[in-house]
Formats: sequence, structure tokens, C-alpha cells
Amino acid sequence: MFDKFNDECGVFGIFGSTSAAAHTALGLHALQHRGQEAAGIVSCLDGQFFSHRAMGLVGDNFSDAAVMNRLQGASAIGHNRYSTTGETLLRNVQPFYADLALGGFALAHNGNLTNAITLRRELIARGSLFASTSDTEVIVHRVALSRSAAIEDRVIDALKLVEGAYSLVILAPKSLIGVRDPNGVRPLVLGKLGDAHIITSETCALDIIGAEHVRDVEPGEMIIVDESGVRSLFPFAAQPPRFCIFEYVYFARPDSVMQNTSVYAVRKRIGAELAREFGVAADVVVPVPDSGVPGAIGYAETAGIPFDLGIIRNHYVGRTFIEPSESVRHLGVKLKHNANSALLKGKRVILVDDSIVRGTTSKKIVTMVREAGASEVHMRIASPPTTNPCFYGVDTPEKSQLMAANHTIDEMAKIIGVDSLAFLTMDGLYRAVGEAKRNNELPQYCDACFSGEYPIALTDNASGISGNQKDLFVKDVA
Amino acid sequence: MFDKFNDECGVFGIFGSTSAAAHTALGLHALQHRGQEAAGIVSCLDGQFFSHRAMGLVGDNFSDAAVMNRLQGASAIGHNRYSTTGETLLRNVQPFYADLALGGFALAHNGNLTNAITLRRELIARGSLFASTSDTEVIVHRVALSRSAAIEDRVIDALKLVEGAYSLVILAPKSLIGVRDPNGVRPLVLGKLGDAHIITSETCALDIIGAEHVRDVEPGEMIIVDESGVRSLFPFAAQPPRFCIFEYVYFARPDSVMQNTSVYAVRKRIGAELAREFGVAADVVVPVPDSGVPGAIGYAETAGIPFDLGIIRNHYVGRTFIEPSESVRHLGVKLKHNANSALLKGKRVILVDDSIVRGTTSKKIVTMVREAGASEVHMRIASPPTTNPCFYGVDTPEKSQLMAANHTIDEMAKIIGVDSLAFLTMDGLYRAVGEAKRNNELPQYCDACFSGEYPIALTDNASGISGNQKDLFVKDVA
Amino acid sequence: MFDKFNDECGVFGIFGSTSAAAHTALGLHALQHRGQEAAGIVSCLDGQFFSHRAMGLVGDNFSDAAVMNRLQGASAIGHNRYSTTGETLLRNVQPFYADLALGGFALAHNGNLTNAITLRRELIARGSLFASTSDTEVIVHRVALSRSAAIEDRVIDALKLVEGAYSLVILAPKSLIGVRDPNGVRPLVLGKLGDAHIITSETCALDIIGAEHVRDVEPGEMIIVDESGVRSLFPFAAQPPRFCIFEYVYFARPDSVMQNTSVYAVRKRIGAELAREFGVAADVVVPVPDSGVPGAIGYAETAGIPFDLGIIRNHYVGRTFIEPSESVRHLGVKLKHNANSALLKGKRVILVDDSIVRGTTSKKIVTMVREAGASEVHMRIASPPTTNPCFYGVDTPEKSQLMAANHTIDEMAKIIGVDSLAFLTMDGLYRAVGEAKRNNELPQYCDACFSGEYPIALTDNASGISGNQKDLFVKDVA
Amino acid sequence: MFDKFNDECGVFGIFGSTSAAAHTALGLHALQHRGQEAAGIVSCLDGQFFSHRAMGLVGDNFSDAAVMNRLQGASAIGHNRYSTTGETLLRNVQPFYADLALGGFALAHNGNLTNAITLRRELIARGSLFASTSDTEVIVHRVALSRSAAIEDRVIDALKLVEGAYSLVILAPKSLIGVRDPNGVRPLVLGKLGDAHIITSETCALDIIGAEHVRDVEPGEMIIVDESGVRSLFPFAAQPPRFCIFEYVYFARPDSVMQNTSVYAVRKRIGAELAREFGVAADVVVPVPDSGVPGAIGYAETAGIPFDLGIIRNHYVGRTFIEPSESVRHLGVKLKHNANSALLKGKRVILVDDSIVRGTTSKKIVTMVREAGASEVHMRIASPPTTNPCFYGVDTPEKSQLMAANHTIDEMAKIIGVDSLAFLTMDGLYRAVGEAKRNNELPQYCDACFSGEYPIALTDNASGISGNQKDLFVKDVA
Repeated sequence: MFDKFNDECGVFGIFGSTSAAAHTALGLHALQHRGQEAAGIVSCLDGQFFSHRAMGLVGDNFSDAAVMNRLQGASAIGHNRYSTTGETLLRNVQPFYADLALGGFALAHNGNLTNAITLRRELIARGSLFASTSDTEVIVHRVALSRSAAIEDRVIDALKLVEGAYSLVILAPKSLIGVRDPNGVRPLVLGKLGDAHIITSETCALDIIGAEHVRDVEPGEMIIVDESGVRSLFPFAAQPPRFCIFEYVYFARPDSVMQNTSVYAVRKRIGAELAREFGVAADVVVPVPDSGVPGAIGYAETAGIPFDLGIIRNHYVGRTFIEPSESVRHLGVKLKHNANSALLKGKRVILVDDSIVRGTTSKKIVTMVREAGASEVHMRIASPPTTNPCFYGVDTPEKSQLMAANHTIDEMAKIIGVDSLAFLTMDGLYRAVGEAKRNNELPQYCDACFSGEYPIALTDNASGISGNQKDLFVKDVA
Repeated sequence: MFDKFNDECGVFGIFGSTSAAAHTALGLHALQHRGQEAAGIVSCLDGQFFSHRAMGLVGDNFSDAAVMNRLQGASAIGHNRYSTTGETLLRNVQPFYADLALGGFALAHNGNLTNAITLRRELIARGSLFASTSDTEVIVHRVALSRSAAIEDRVIDALKLVEGAYSLVILAPKSLIGVRDPNGVRPLVLGKLGDAHIITSETCALDIIGAEHVRDVEPGEMIIVDESGVRSLFPFAAQPPRFCIFEYVYFARPDSVMQNTSVYAVRKRIGAELAREFGVAADVVVPVPDSGVPGAIGYAETAGIPFDLGIIRNHYVGRTFIEPSESVRHLGVKLKHNANSALLKGKRVILVDDSIVRGTTSKKIVTMVREAGASEVHMRIASPPTTNPCFYGVDTPEKSQLMAANHTIDEMAKIIGVDSLAFLTMDGLYRAVGEAKRNNELPQYCDACFSGEYPIALTDNASGISGNQKDLFVKDVA
Repeated sequence: MFDKFNDECGVFGIFGSTSAAAHTALGLHALQHRGQEAAGIVSCLDGQFFSHRAMGLVGDNFSDAAVMNRLQGASAIGHNRYSTTGETLLRNVQPFYADLALGGFALAHNGNLTNAITLRRELIARGSLFASTSDTEVIVHRVALSRSAAIEDRVIDALKLVEGAYSLVILAPKSLIGVRDPNGVRPLVLGKLGDAHIITSETCALDIIGAEHVRDVEPGEMIIVDESGVRSLFPFAAQPPRFCIFEYVYFARPDSVMQNTSVYAVRKRIGAELAREFGVAADVVVPVPDSGVPGAIGYAETAGIPFDLGIIRNHYVGRTFIEPSESVRHLGVKLKHNANSALLKGKRVILVDDSIVRGTTSKKIVTMVREAGASEVHMRIASPPTTNPCFYGVDTPEKSQLMAANHTIDEMAKIIGVDSLAFLTMDGLYRAVGEAKRNNELPQYCDACFSGEYPIALTDNASGISGNQKDLFVKDVA
Repeated sequence: MFDKFNDECGVFGIFGSTSAAAHTALGLHALQHRGQEAAGIVSCLDGQFFSHRAMGLVGDNFSDAAVMNRLQGASAIGHNRYSTTGETLLRNVQPFYADLALGGFALAHNGNLTNAITLRRELIARGSLFASTSDTEVIVHRVALSRSAAIEDRVIDALKLVEGAYSLVILAPKSLIGVRDPNGVRPLVLGKLGDAHIITSETCALDIIGAEHVRDVEPGEMIIVDESGVRSLFPFAAQPPRFCIFEYVYFARPDSVMQNTSVYAVRKRIGAELAREFGVAADVVVPVPDSGVPGAIGYAETAGIPFDLGIIRNHYVGRTFIEPSESVRHLGVKLKHNANSALLKGKRVILVDDSIVRGTTSKKIVTMVREAGASEVHMRIASPPTTNPCFYGVDTPEKSQLMAANHTIDEMAKIIGVDSLAFLTMDGLYRAVGEAKRNNELPQYCDACFSGEYPIALTDNASGISGNQKDLFVKDVA
């Protein structure tokens, strides 16, 4: 919709809070950028679970006192969802809940499993019933089928069968569990507020409730929080860490800290790297709002060129778009952005954006900036060209839709209509996150969207199963 | 809510229709009296299933052309739901759908299983996940777990494990299946419209679409409709038929025909039996509308006393009640009924009602009739005293709530405030349905609510499992 | 929609009640048959007015405690609306409210003014602004423009300018006023509940709150209720009374009493007159439900032929219709009615209905009854042929749409498909309401829909102003 | 709600467009910052008007094709509303529409009349009925009552009676009229798109549809657009221009141009003036987002201190707030903002905000910044202290609620918790908008909120009429 890669989810779990559901709602609100389609919370009191899941924003669904009061108990987990295409259904909204023989069980997942359809087919063949069309449900089935006694062992049994990226929070009658896949693709952090422990996607969700950031959950680590405190397990074979580098580029909130590194600081350093790598004479550095702002500040500081808001964002554009008639449909980008003509007129402009996906928005923005009177337009992109889709929990178009996968940079510059176009180099990006350079033998991060090197097997894909095996599923009407 | 026993569901299935979903919606509309809480339709086109389920009336949810157009295909099943208490949840709305290894599978159920919780516990122990809190879902799980190849064999495997009352319609990729439990407790009929075959709860659902009533589905019979036509199987050990006699008394629509007997005609004969058994001198016979009307007509004809509408029903009372303040809450029954004072003044009145459940409504009606000036009020009830709850798919209060289970008829007369009170005798009821008398060795019908003789084992109850094992389940909030 | 004439409104006012708004909501609920499109209540506490108006049924809009609690005060008026075509707008929902120089003023109207457009044009020319497209608003304007000091004098000034039918309830800061037009076309009654006084359309609205029926408000009478009690004025030139005879035939609830005459009793007598005037050999008398029931009972009693429910009504048909596809649209009438085939088969049937408007429903019902196996179908109509539209507050089709205005009775019988068709004679109808016969010089009732004799000038019509001067008005979108 | 002054409305009108309603919707979307409570559009085709008004955002109410298609015609006006307190009612949503003797008439108003209640009382006394509780309706009444023939003369007659601030767009059957009060308090601009002419609040509403900014409408000017083109009148006695200086400080969008001056440029100059007037040694300049950004950039540039996003705004906070329980209510500001701790830790911070109203938000923000580790916090405000309420169309708290009206700057600094606090001087502000200094004899702008010098008489206030004469009005319930 916004011509961006979109992260698919945010998760939050808390144990030992007197306001567990309220804290979870606040945490999810802070994580709203990770998913705006739907939200859900499951809480637990004395083995009884309470669930509310709804389409829409957290603030629209979890601000009613009656709803919140019924989400009882001192522990809770929650989930924000960003859906891929089509399957926008309440039954796909997480957390998923199940009655297991040993009691209730709820789970929320950020990431994507790469062998989910394969596992789903096996489970259906053996007689399991699926309530959703989500990859996440296979984990719940496998937990239910495990013969282990302890809930954490059941989870481990289940996760040993799955491949892909996952940061999970799990609510059991007497515990909260957080797990991160062995490569640590998606983020997960541990926090503390008084006697309560929190496991969530980003530190901004700790900040909002005034919780302390204890540390990141490690790749492959399972954290168990219960009455006796916090335990840590590493139940899986160790894997080299491959944290998603795009979290720094775009997904995470700038005020979050990941791997002890400020996201905002990384983005400013990216801007600085861009200025060093691809400097150009200009009068003003203009961010494409809002994601381009830190990079533009970093670029401007390093290049010594003024930073200014040459494009103004209309913050009232949310989920609804005005496209009242064909005759005005071409206005598109103007619903969200307007050029600050008084500023841009006659100026040589450097536009800083985080990435180019399909390129359609970039083209419209450049046209708008030129019509506002800019004499030159140079575009600088705060990441390498995105040439490959993600299979680890990010909503990306197919390769055929990715501009950089199908055009040279010169062609892109021509299509977009800029005087010059440059993408940050891969090494520049690695420098911005604190590495000397990319280790091409064993990259320190997952950068598959730039490099095409997928660190985790794409089992479903390899079996020729496309990502949308919709023929298996019933269609919900209306 | 209305101080009545309430049937829990109506089902409808059609195969080979050019308007399968539309016919199903119409059939469900005709069956609306069997359940007003929610409705659902699943259709099938070339192995792809389409589903829409919603809270509320059929006419409110299936009249939108966009919805109906998406319910594609020449076969469909549908379900009206009347819930028991509390668990008024979308995830409990039928038909239930499942992806099985052999394709899609949808099922709608009228009745109630008496070993559902026992089976559910077994299934959870072996790792099955339940998406609903409904007894019906255990059938779907058992179908999924069956190792038989053919869908009908899987259904048979599953049903051999369940106890209780069930009239089912099932939609498979290439067939429609109807099954009635071996005792035939709940109704199910077979119809035909051109080349299309229909399986549904009552003949009124055939009438609405202009279909012909072929015959009743027999107790223990499985009907399979597919491209090659209609097949009949009797896969279960034969049982004596025990059709629910209360269908004649109250549940069924008066224009339906059950076991080749007109429901309206039975109700008139019940009135005639009442007049013969418990005649009394009076000026007017007044039905408690609307269910008491045929009985009152029958009574009046036999007794030679005028039939008149002495109580007028407000048809705009539906699901919402005005109870705007404490000071007017006692008005209660007047929201639905008003006495026709001009008619009743100074008259000796015979009130005919179908049954007395808690007795609260009866008391209010009698008070209202007296305040309207009736000089005497005699109440005649078109069934024996209801002294026992039903476990076969009818929503009944617990025994402690049933007036007749806790009071003599004299006490009841006093509480209700009538000059005389009489209930139809058991033999009178059996005569009205065409029997010489009740066969006390092997009753021809299920009359457990009157007799306490339950023809099918109450396994869950016997294990000390109450009907509402809510501790197992998550609570949906809002 | 239902091929009937439809009354346009019900009104209710109360003064001196501790539950004024609740009593008004209950009264409107009892009057729901007079208008189902919208409802409104205005209450008054110490000169401050409170208003709630909404589309839909009373029970759907006035059962929320929060709404009711805000309708404060010991006096209130309410209104049920049945709209004509199209202008289904919240701004047309009554009661209308205005700030006048002397304080708040609210008004609810049953009836229709015949010079409203003429008056509206005059008012607009002098600079008045209209907030609605309703005829009623001219009264409010004329009250506002009156130079009289007392509110009742202002109302009298205003009403002296208007022509047409009106039964009004008016709420002023310290009084409740009821007025009935000099001909008394629409009903209005006075009631009492403890110290509270009620003015409302029908006695059934008194019954529901347990109030006593004091007497009818007289034609041309103004009743003023305030702290000092009840006063009566006759401010207008006396006119011969012309109560709408169709209120007895169809509009009023059968349990209401009008002019000291039971509506139910009149309807039974109409049936008896029909049997005497147009008796025919038959096996069963069947009402077209529900309005035909009392007439059919009366007919059956007089003719000595059994009364039976040969047509069953589906009470779940309300405002929404299932018309899911063209292929099933012809089913039409079956959504609401089904023939009781078991009863009708081989029988000679007398169908009793209250009136024939367009005749489309009659034709479908007869077809249905024949398909159910009736050997003969004789239709008896409980009123003379309706050959003329009403301009006094009833929603009627134009003359060109009225079957009886365009066909002989023989032609109608052929079109409808009956073996015989007969309408009650005008004198028969007058006998049923207690007159010896119709006084053709000065008819005792308004029977314009049968006779074409309009007792009140049709000023707008005479000026060539059609009833729908929509060119004057803005169209509300969506 | 957001502890800000809030502009009350935006207006847009267009004549001669093939997509008049669509262009109006887009224009209103661009003006959404001027009012988020409700929006309305009235269009006109051949003398027939079409209206849609709704609570909520433009994008939520005017994106449905069915709605837009019914808003027919080549001319249209629209309005965004920001309400003051309480009276959040559909009947107060503009444009207002009236049937006048000469045809339809619609009007939308930005501003506030200072003698509205006085005029309203006169009108009610003479018998006019009010449909709303808005000040704007008196203009419509006075237009209706004018005896002039031409619509523009009627408008002039009406406006000669009103006092206060108004920028109006008016739609008549054959013309579009724009008027600005003689002091020109609120903005109004003229634009052109092909053959279509536009009159609207700000240039950003021209930009969104690609229209050209022709010029500002002058104070006291009436622009009439009809088939013959654009005419200009100055029908009122000339007054010194007193444009609202706060439009530059906060209300207008930064990409708008007012009086040929870029709003963004003024805000940067304000920041520069602040740096010059109240410079302080610091490590980073941090804007309070989003309104503080241009000022902070201007400050940082002038002071040579780095500009950085030290506070991150959560853009998903809209109209709903999560306040799920008492225990978390104190979190307040964190729902909208989070400190970028990694950046702020140990730094001397200059916070730039546009104004301080009640001071409550400022205090929370400072606390948050300090908790994030800032070593010093200096607050610089981009306007003089706001010590007086506005009566010209801005929603402001009463004087007793304005922090600066009740505390010295030192006291404020202490309460807010900053190391230093400074407000821009009045002359600094005038310099920023391009004047040498404030002309104290005859100020070039309306700066009453800072100075208490009200350029237009406060007639209602002087008569002791408070702004909320609610005793006159009916209360809408629910």
C-alpha cells in the first residue's frame, strides 16, 4: 500500500503485573508501526484465560474500560498484525489460543516459518484441524501433539520441527515464555517493571510503560518467566546470528535500541555514509517523511548542507484513502505529501529515502518536487538496492515487482526522473551498524533482500509450494 | 428468555441447484423459529468452499447481494443457531468447516451429543486443537482422524463414537450427506426441486422454495447425494425410534409435516383432547399467542365455546426489550402481550398455552387477564407437566427451575392464580399424535422432559461432568 | 412494502410522571404498529429539554439505560414515524423541537396537513428557514411567529392557519398540550396514571403502562395539562366529526378502544356482516394473517363454518427481505406466509383479508392457497373497495396503483384468481361500527378512501402542487 | 485535548469543475489540520443541491464512490469542523443549507461571530427557528430575511449586522461566493484550476488538486464566481487588516503561503529569532514534534547547535486514547511521544515548542526528557506567552486555565521543571513575519491572545452573555 517493505508483527508479553492487560495494550500501541491490521490480547488469571482480538488499531479496540476489565490476571500476551494479501480474517488474528490437556495455551508470533505449508499438510493428513490459514498455527498443533510433560518442553519439541524466523511470546497457566529462533532474525527483548517481567519486540514498548530494558533475548534462547523468576535455556543447536539488518533501515522505531545500538543513531550514520560515498553539490537536504528524516539529518550534518522539510506529510492519511473519482486518482501521492514549494523553488535538492521498492512512489515524489521548482533533484537511498523478497516475516512484493531487481541504477534514475540516484553500499550499511565491513563468508546479518543469500532453508518454496496455497482453504465471505 | 423450551437449531442442505446459497438462505429463513441467534452458510464450487457465518437473523445477514454472490456453487449447507447460555460466539456458529486431507468438509448439526465432553477430553489429550466450545466439533475431529478413504465412511467412523441426538447435513467436495441418529430424536426430511435434492429439518423449508417433500430421513439413515443421485445407508445398529414428541407440541412450525402427520392437526387434536379430558364451563377460549392458537381452536371446536383473541401480541418485540427503568420493569409481559379488555370483561375464560416452564410468564398473563375483568380464569396446558431437562438439543432450564418439577398442580394453580389448571395427560398426548396410548415398556417417542425416561445414555452427566465445563475454555471478551 | 395502507404515526405525551421518558418509550412501543421507521422522545426538566431521535424501532433505540437516564424530567412526548417515500431522514424524525422566545417547545404530529406546501412557500418567502421536509414544521414556524403571549394561544394562532388532519402532542416548559383537528380525523385519547396525565393515539398505549382510559379527546378540542391540572378548550369553529373509519378496519390495534367501541369487536362484526352479505358454501374460513384474523373469526361464527389457520405467518420477517437472486425473487410472498397444505388440501376455502390495495399480494396468496390443494377459493374483504388515496396522514399509493380504482370486481376476481370475490358494502361497514347506515348527506366518518368524498379541503392539491415538491429541497446523500 | 489552541475550521469552495465534489473532498483533506471532528460537502447541479455531512475525518466519510457520485454538479463547498466543548452534534456540522425563496443556499464558515447570541435572541424573539446551536446560523437567517433581490446583496445585508471573524464560502444556484471579514482575521485564498475557480482557507488545499494560487482574498472583500467569471466587491466600511498572527505560529500548515509569505519560512525565522534573543549553551536542539520542528531547525541553524529528533512521535495516536486503567493513566504523554534516550543521555537539551497553553503537556515532556538522561533542559517557545482567550474562531481555554496568564515565567519554569524557559518577544514575532516591529498604536496583526487587545468588539461578552448559553438549548441525548 505504501510502497514499502512492511514488517508483519509486533509481540508483547508480561508476567507479574497488576495491570497486565493494560500494560500489554500500551506495549502494543508503542509497537503499532509493526502491524496496523489487527490486534489481540490474551490474559490469564488462575488458569482461566481471557481473549480479545479485533481488526484495527490497538487504540480503537483496547481503550474501552469494559473490554480491559474483562482481560483479567497478572500475565498477558499481545500481538499486532500486518497481513500479507487477502486473508484479512479475524480467525487469523493472534494470539492464538488452545485448550491443551495441561491447560490453556496462547501464542503470538513475529516472523514467518519457511516450512509451514509442508508441516500443515502433514498435520492435516494425520487428522489435525486448522482454525486459521496462518503459518503460526502449526506451532500450536505441534505443541498440542508433543508427549512431553512440561509446557516448555512441548514448545521445544514443536520448534525443533519448524524452520524460519520466529520471535514468540507464549502464555501458559503459570508462566510466560519467550523464544527467538536460532538465527535471531526478528528482534526480542527482555524488560522489567518492578516485579513484572516483559518480553517484547522492541524497547519502545518498554519505554511506554516505564519499564527497564534488561537485555536482548539471544538468538536461540528460550526465556521462561514464572513465580520462581526468570530462567534461560538454549535448547536448539547453535546457529550463527543473522539479525535482520532491515530492522535498522526501516522497520524498527527510531527510539528503539537493538543489540545495544540505537536505531536512530544507525540511521544518522547511514546518512553520513551516504554523504561520504555519494556526495553531490546541493542547496538543501530533504527527507522523504517520515522514515527518511534521521538519514537526511545525518547526511546534512556530514555534507554541511542545510536540512529542511521540503516535503510536508499529511498526518491524517491513515487507513482510508480518498480516491473519489478516476479524474483525481492520479493525485495519489499528494494525499500523503505536499511539496514545500516556497522552500524548494530554484534549489538543488538532495532527497533522502530509506529504500525503493516498486519505485512508483519515488517517481511521484520526484515529479512533485520538480513541479515545486527544484532545479536539480538527487536521490540518495539509505540502503542497498532491494532485489529479493523476504520469506522471514516481512511483506514484500514478488521479485518481478521490485524495481531494483529488474533495472540498472541508471535505468532507475531515468524512470524516477532524478538527476542522480545512489544507493548505500552493502559495506556502508554494515559500517553504519558498527561492523568494519560485511563478512561475505558468513554475513553478520540477514541481508537476503539485498544479497539474495537466504540464511534459513526455504523448504516450502523448494517443494514448489507457492506462498499462497489458497486452493486448500475455505474463503470467508464478507 | 421467553420462558419456553427452545429448540437449538435448524439445518438445510441442497445439492444440484443453480441457486444453492439462495435456496439455503430461504430455507434457513423458513427455519428461523429453530434458532435466532446466528446463521451460517457454506457453499462449494469445484472443491473450493465459501463460508459466511454471522450473529443475527438470516434476513439480516444473507440479503446482501454481494454476500450471496460470493457463496458460489451448486451445493450448500446452512444452519440456524439457538444458543444455550453465555457462549454466544462467532466461533461457535455453524456450519463448521475443516480442511481435510481429502478436501474441504463442512457440517451443520441439530441436536446435542451426550458424550461430547468425554470425547473432547480424549481428543485434547491426544493433541487435537478445538476452535469452538461446541459439542459438534468432536464429530469434525473424529472425521478428520478417521483412516477410512471415503468421506461417508469417515463420517460413519466418527458417528459410531458419539452418543446423543443428531440430525446432520454435511457438505463434501462432491457430495451432500444427511444423517439422523439411530433413535431419530430430531427431525430431518428429504426434498426435491427439479434436479436438486434437499435435506433439511422441516418441510416448511421445502415449501418456501417450492420443493417437493419426498419423505422423512429415517432414524439411523445416512443419505448421500452426489452426481450419480441419491443413496441411502443404514450404517448403525438399529434402535427403536424415539422422535421428540415436543416437536409436535411446540418446536416445529405448524405448517410442517412430520412423520406424515401435520403439526397443526396434532395441535388441534391436543386441544380437542384437553377439552375432553378437562372440560370446564366457560364463555370464551383464549389462546396464549402465538403457540397456543391451534390448541385453543381445537379446544373451542370440541367444547363448543367461542374462540377469541383475548390476548393481543405485539409483533414488534423481537430481540430487544425495553426495560428503561426499575420503576417500569414489572410491566414485563405487557411488552409482548396486552389483554383485549373489551372482550374479556366479565367473562369466564379458558386460557390455552402449550406448556409451563418456569411459570413466571403464566402468572403475569393470568394477572393481566384478571385485571382486564375476567370473572374466572381456567388454564389448560397442551402437554403434560415438564418435569425434566432435555439433553438432546433443547435449551431447558435446570430441574430446580422447572415449576412442575417442584410443585403439585394444585400448588401451581395457586401460584399462577387460576381458578383451575390442567395439563394434558401423557396418553392424551400420544392419542393426539395418532397412537392408541403410550407404550410404557418402549415409548414410541422421546418424552423424557415429561417422563424422565432418557432413551440415550447421558455419558457426560454420568461421569459427573456438568453441561457447562467452562473451566476448560478461554473466555472471549466483548 | 406490504401492499397495505399504512398509518403514518403514533404520538404519546405524559405530564407529572416520575418515569416520563420510560412511560413514553413504553407507550411508543405499544404504538409501534403506527410507524416503524423512526422514533423520538423529548422530555423536559425545569425548562431544560432533552431529545433523542433515531431511525428504527422503539425497542432498538430506547432500551439503553444511558439514553433513558439522560431523558430527564417529569414530562415527555414521543412519536413513531412511518414515512412515505424516499425522505427517510433523521431531520424529519419527530418530535420537532424549537427554542422560542418563551422557552423550549416540542411537537409531535399524527396526521397530514393539506395546505402545508402553500404555507411553507409563504414562510420561505418571508424569510423562515426550514430544517426538515415535513409538513409538520409549518406548525412550529407559525407558533414561533405568533405574537400571543401564552403558549396555548400561540398554538391556536398557528392551527387556525393550517388545514388537514392532526392529532398533536406538544411539550412546553410547564405544560403538556394535546390537540385534535376539528374533524377529529385521527384518534387521540386522554389517560391517567396516578397523578400523571397522558395524551396518546390509542388506548393500547395506556394499557401497557397500566394507565386508565379517561376519555377520547374530542374533535377540535385542546387539552392543556399543567401543575394546576387538566383544562379543555374548543378554540376552533365546530365541524362535523369525521373520524377515519379505516382506523377500525386496519390501522388501530385490535385491543384498542376508539369512541368507546372495541376495535376487535368492530372487526368481528365486519366479518359477521360479510358472512351475511356475501355468504358462500365452504369448508373452512382462513384469515390472511394477521390483520384478517378477527374478521375471519366473525365470519366463521356467523356462517357456522370452521375457522382455521390455513396460512402460517413467519414472524421473523421484519424490515429486511431476502431477495438473494433473480431466480428466487418470485418467491416473494412465501418469505412472509406459507400455506398450511395439510389443512387446505381438497377444501373449499374462504379467505378473509382486510383490504385490497394493489392486489399483488392477494394474487400471490391465492396462488399459494391453490397450490396447497384448495378446491375452491373465495375471497371476502373486510372493507369496501379502496378507490381513492388518502391525504390525511395515511401512506397510500396513487389512484393509478389502486386495483379497485381501475378494475371491476369481476375483473379483480379474475386477476387475483379466486372463484368469488366480495367486498363489504359501505352500509355494512357503517353497521359494523354501530351506525344504522351511512348518512350520505353528511357521512358520520371520513371514508374518502372508499367514497372519494374528502371532508377537508385539499388546498395544495387544488393549487396544482403535487405531494412531493422535491424540487424545493436539498438531497441528503447517504 | 492536545493542550494546544485549535483552529476551528477550514473551508473550500469550487465553481466550474468537472469533479467539484471530489476536488472539495481533496481540499478538505488537505485542510484536515483545521478541524477533525466533522466534515461536510454541499454540491449543486442545475439548482438542485446535494448534501453529505458526517462526524469524523474527510477520508473516512468521503471516500465511498456511492457517496461521491451522489454529490453531483460542477460547483461545491465543503467544511472541516473543530468543535469547542460538548456540542458535538450532526446538526452543527457545516455547510449549512437553506431553501430560500430564490432557491437553495449553502454556507461554510471559518471564524467566530462575537455578537451571535445577541443576534440569535433577536431572531428568536421575532419568530425564527434555529436548527443548530452554532453562531453561523444567524448569518443564514439574516440572508433569508433580507429583502434584497440578488443573493450577493442578501449576503451583504446579513454580514453588515454581524461582528466577529469570518471567512465564508457560499454556494448559490448559479454562483460561488467567498467573503472575508473587514479585518481579515482568518485566511482565505483564491485559486484556479483550468476553468475552475477555488476559494479556500489555505494554499495547501490548492496544491493537493494541482491548482494555481492566484492571490489572497483581501480583508473585507467579497468574491463572486459565476458563469461570467470572477468579480470582486468591497461592500463593507474599510478596516485596518488584523490577520491572526497565530496562523503563522501554529494553525496553518507549514507548506501554505499566507500574505505571500511561507509559513514554514516564518517558523524557521521564529526559531532564529529565539536563538538570537534567548541563546543558551547546549548540545542538541530538539523539537517537540511535530509543530516545533521548523522552529527547532531555525534555532539550530542560527545557534550552530545540532538539530536532532530527541522525541519520537507515535503517529498512530489519533482520536482514541488508551487509558485502560487508573494505574496507567499517568502515562499520558507517552501514548503520543517517547524520548530518544540513546540520543539525549547526558546532553544539554534545548526543547523548542510553539506555545504553552495549560502547561500540563510541557511538564510531562520535560519529565520524560529528564528521565531519558538529559543533563540540562532549556525550553524555548516560538511565540509570546498566551495570556488571553480567543473569540475569533479558535478553541482556547478560559483565561484561568492559561498558564502564562496566571504565572510569571520564573514560576512557569519551575512548574515545568526546566533549567531555563524563554518565550519569543512580541517584536521578535513581528520581525519573523516580516515587520520591523509591532506597531503598538495600530498592531499589524491580531495578537489578542498575547496582548489582550481585541480588534473587534466582543458584544456578547460585553452584554454579560457567556460563550455557552446552554440554557437556551435542547440537549441531544446520545
